[in-house]
Amino acid sequence: MIDLNSDLGEGYGAWTMGDDDALLGIVSSANIACGFHAGDPQIMRRAAVTAAHRGVTIGAHVAFPDLRGFGRRNLDLPPQEVTDDVLYQIGALDAIARAYGTRVSYVKPHGALYNRIAIDAELAAAVVAALKDFDPTLALLTLPDSAASAAAESAGIASVAEGFADRAYTPDGRLVSRREPGAVLTDPEFVAARAVRMATEHTVTAIDGTDIRIPVASLCVHGDSPGAVNLAQAVRTALHEAGVTVAAFSPPR
Amino acid sequence: MIDLNSDLGEGYGAWTMGDDDALLGIVSSANIACGFHAGDPQIMRRAAVTAAHRGVTIGAHVAFPDLRGFGRRNLDLPPQEVTDDVLYQIGALDAIARAYGTRVSYVKPHGALYNRIAIDAELAAAVVAALKDFDPTLALLTLPDSAASAAAESAGIASVAEGFADRAYTPDGRLVSRREPGAVLTDPEFVAARAVRMATEHTVTAIDGTDIRIPVASLCVHGDSPGAVNLAQAVRTALHEAGVTVAAFSPPR
Amino acid sequence: MIDLNSDLGEGYGAWTMGDDDALLGIVSSANIACGFHAGDPQIMRRAAVTAAHRGVTIGAHVAFPDLRGFGRRNLDLPPQEVTDDVLYQIGALDAIARAYGTRVSYVKPHGALYNRIAIDAELAAAVVAALKDFDPTLALLTLPDSAASAAAESAGIASVAEGFADRAYTPDGRLVSRREPGAVLTDPEFVAARAVRMATEHTVTAIDGTDIRIPVASLCVHGDSPGAVNLAQAVRTALHEAGVTVAAFSPPR
Amino acid sequence: MIDLNSDLGEGYGAWTMGDDDALLGIVSSANIACGFHAGDPQIMRRAAVTAAHRGVTIGAHVAFPDLRGFGRRNLDLPPQEVTDDVLYQIGALDAIARAYGTRVSYVKPHGALYNRIAIDAELAAAVVAALKDFDPTLALLTLPDSAASAAAESAGIASVAEGFADRAYTPDGRLVSRREPGAVLTDPEFVAARAVRMATEHTVTAIDGTDIRIPVASLCVHGDSPGAVNLAQAVRTALHEAGVTVAAFSPPR
Repeated sequence: MIDLNSDLGEGYGAWTMGDDDALLGIVSSANIACGFHAGDPQIMRRAAVTAAHRGVTIGAHVAFPDLRGFGRRNLDLPPQEVTDDVLYQIGALDAIARAYGTRVSYVKPHGALYNRIAIDAELAAAVVAALKDFDPTLALLTLPDSAASAAAESAGIASVAEGFADRAYTPDGRLVSRREPGAVLTDPEFVAARAVRMATEHTVTAIDGTDIRIPVASLCVHGDSPGAVNLAQAVRTALHEAGVTVAAFSPPR
Repeated sequence: MIDLNSDLGEGYGAWTMGDDDALLGIVSSANIACGFHAGDPQIMRRAAVTAAHRGVTIGAHVAFPDLRGFGRRNLDLPPQEVTDDVLYQIGALDAIARAYGTRVSYVKPHGALYNRIAIDAELAAAVVAALKDFDPTLALLTLPDSAASAAAESAGIASVAEGFADRAYTPDGRLVSRREPGAVLTDPEFVAARAVRMATEHTVTAIDGTDIRIPVASLCVHGDSPGAVNLAQAVRTALHEAGVTVAAFSPPR
Repeated sequence: MIDLNSDLGEGYGAWTMGDDDALLGIVSSANIACGFHAGDPQIMRRAAVTAAHRGVTIGAHVAFPDLRGFGRRNLDLPPQEVTDDVLYQIGALDAIARAYGTRVSYVKPHGALYNRIAIDAELAAAVVAALKDFDPTLALLTLPDSAASAAAESAGIASVAEGFADRAYTPDGRLVSRREPGAVLTDPEFVAARAVRMATEHTVTAIDGTDIRIPVASLCVHGDSPGAVNLAQAVRTALHEAGVTVAAFSPPR
Repeated sequence: MIDLNSDLGEGYGAWTMGDDDALLGIVSSANIACGFHAGDPQIMRRAAVTAAHRGVTIGAHVAFPDLRGFGRRNLDLPPQEVTDDVLYQIGALDAIARAYGTRVSYVKPHGALYNRIAIDAELAAAVVAALKDFDPTLALLTLPDSAASAAAESAGIASVAEGFADRAYTPDGRLVSRREPGAVLTDPEFVAARAVRMATEHTVTAIDGTDIRIPVASLCVHGDSPGAVNLAQAVRTALHEAGVTVAAFSPPR
């Protein structure tokens, strides 16, 4: 059994990004943008309504406040400010979700914030504090064995280990930077097989050819191009054929 | 017994507006801006923490999305978009309030949205729908005998009648437009006496000299200048001397 | 001889809109968004560089300040504020254009501002004042026989008559609202023939079947879908085959 | 002879900051915010009009795009993006200035951008490239002996050495960080005497008591509090009494 998650609702105003409808037929968990790096209340509602209708669990895809940079730029914010910003985003999405019969079940930080809290213990604690303040039963979807998972654990917040079947790993279990050659894998068959192995054996072949063990409770798939949707569908199909059930780590509320 | 309310938390980033600290020693209800016309998560937290500490009830001061225009410009938005925007704002503030031991108890629309729903039944219903979806025990603080109060009533939402001791009224109980001479009253003694009469007799002298009856459960005071804070303090003192208790229409949660 | 113009550079940050590259191989004039409804300095630079390289004339596609609404929402701004906003946008684009060897040659208002100044003489004068202040040799690309063209004329600013081969016209030469059935035409062959007739005979068949005369110096084409690019290309090809030269009303500076 | 400069036009929408009117009676050069960290076209116009009327030279106070952080947060932007952003801002202000009979004469980066280019040669070159592209006669107002002044020199752009009479200096001529005790000086008499010595002897006493030589062609004064305006006025008066003429390093255009 494994969860599939994807980033959704990442348009803004007249702009769209990714194929939310296609993804909501593939994933079990939807990370919905909350207006700080992408998303606005209308887009959030549409994503939440469709997710609720299809039985997909909703998570808050929280980010640094940075529409122009799509949340990919690092911002040196004081921890208290990050806690406030995360609370604001969770609350905003939860209010909309609640109006349409669902709730926020987990939080997945986005972009630069995701990367920062994987290594910055103070900021990780700031994010976790927001979850704890809002609802201590919220889970944090994040890199395993990271500052983020450690902060969650020490605060009594569940952390869910995320893996990427379409990304190369270093021998010590980190993601190879997108700037490196071979960092992103695109062959659907290869990625799908990799996903099955991550789900069933918790093992992946690192970029140096060695096999490494990584805990993975949720695999991330993308939908920002027709190729990406095909890849996501190939992963879903291969998991099914391998007898792996795709199911949310937390059922929709 | 009467409620005193004021708009708070209306700075943004490095910019400040009004004297929140002074006002939170005067009012019983604080309308906190939610980031659409003013306010950001840090400012919202500071206002919520101080309000909670002083036992002041918190309301969501929701607005059209218009930072540059401070929410004072009319926007022709579809009703569904207004409902989504209001839900987003209530949820965001409630999440921050909850983290500091309080909750949102009511909603007061701001600026152009306040004026629009006083006369636009469709948009009033859109705002009320957000309250109902979020929490049907939230009250709507608004003009009495307006499209807004009617929409609240027909949806089963409590509406609280707001009055303005420092504004001139027309003989039919509307506010004289700020563009008209004599629309805004500034003499502390005069305004304070007016406030006492509105609170104790539900009566105010209109701009033509006639006395009119207006239901008032909450009086709005301002804090955007030293003079405004003095006026607010004069109103509070006069009410006290007249034996009127200043208390929130809804206790802090 | 006729000009073909198109709206370009309408992405924002990570978001894209339309196929600028394809359009810059088709049109003679590029209306580049200036950051108020769409566009940011990077997108503006890329559009300006490509336009300069292909000999396409650049215009400032100025708008109300409204990223979330893509400049399509009406804003009640004082005329002075509109003049200031338009000056700001022209200057910003011209600075970038100048750095890459070209200049702004004309101004085309966008969306709600375009529609407003077609009928609002005061706001039309406010837009024209900005052109006159910045550089009185700038042309205004706008609806013929409108408040905008009248304001330009009375200020000594050249106005260029714009037509839409893919939009239905009323018998008195106005565009049929997009909300009406039949307002937008999509058959490439039909639209291309219509464009040729508009260019060569200054005549178009209105929605009631009557032929009307409309002055057209520039035809607007779109690029926000593969179908739109095909349509634009069909128009260009048909004009060529009919012996009409596509050339900017004002050569690149 | 010395220049006095100040940051002006740093409000946004309904928010104000500092006393522009008072400062424009004191300084010879006005650094006007361009909408990225503060300022909007209306505020820019009002500042430009008053500056032009009083014969004060105008500079573009360019910044990282960061309204909520007031341009004080570091952003890791590629150099090309910084060049584009600076071009955009200079052009926007120059268009408004030109409409009211003046022009941009120099550029002073703001906040985090100012600090970054004092030490980051690549980003300094990116800022200087924008000046060169827009108008190579623009001067760069910046820290002397910095990466910024070096980049200007190597590009053939004039750099103007800025000093701060109200800030403590390290023995090697750097500013003591605001986070250190004693970094900001507030006694008007003491600061004024320091300003006179900086202007007449190009000497200042560092925080360790030693005298250091610093080239200063322009002194920065502030206006964000009544105390700040008094300080600025005290500096101006003391310079006058010491026989130092306050005059812009570049006359208004």
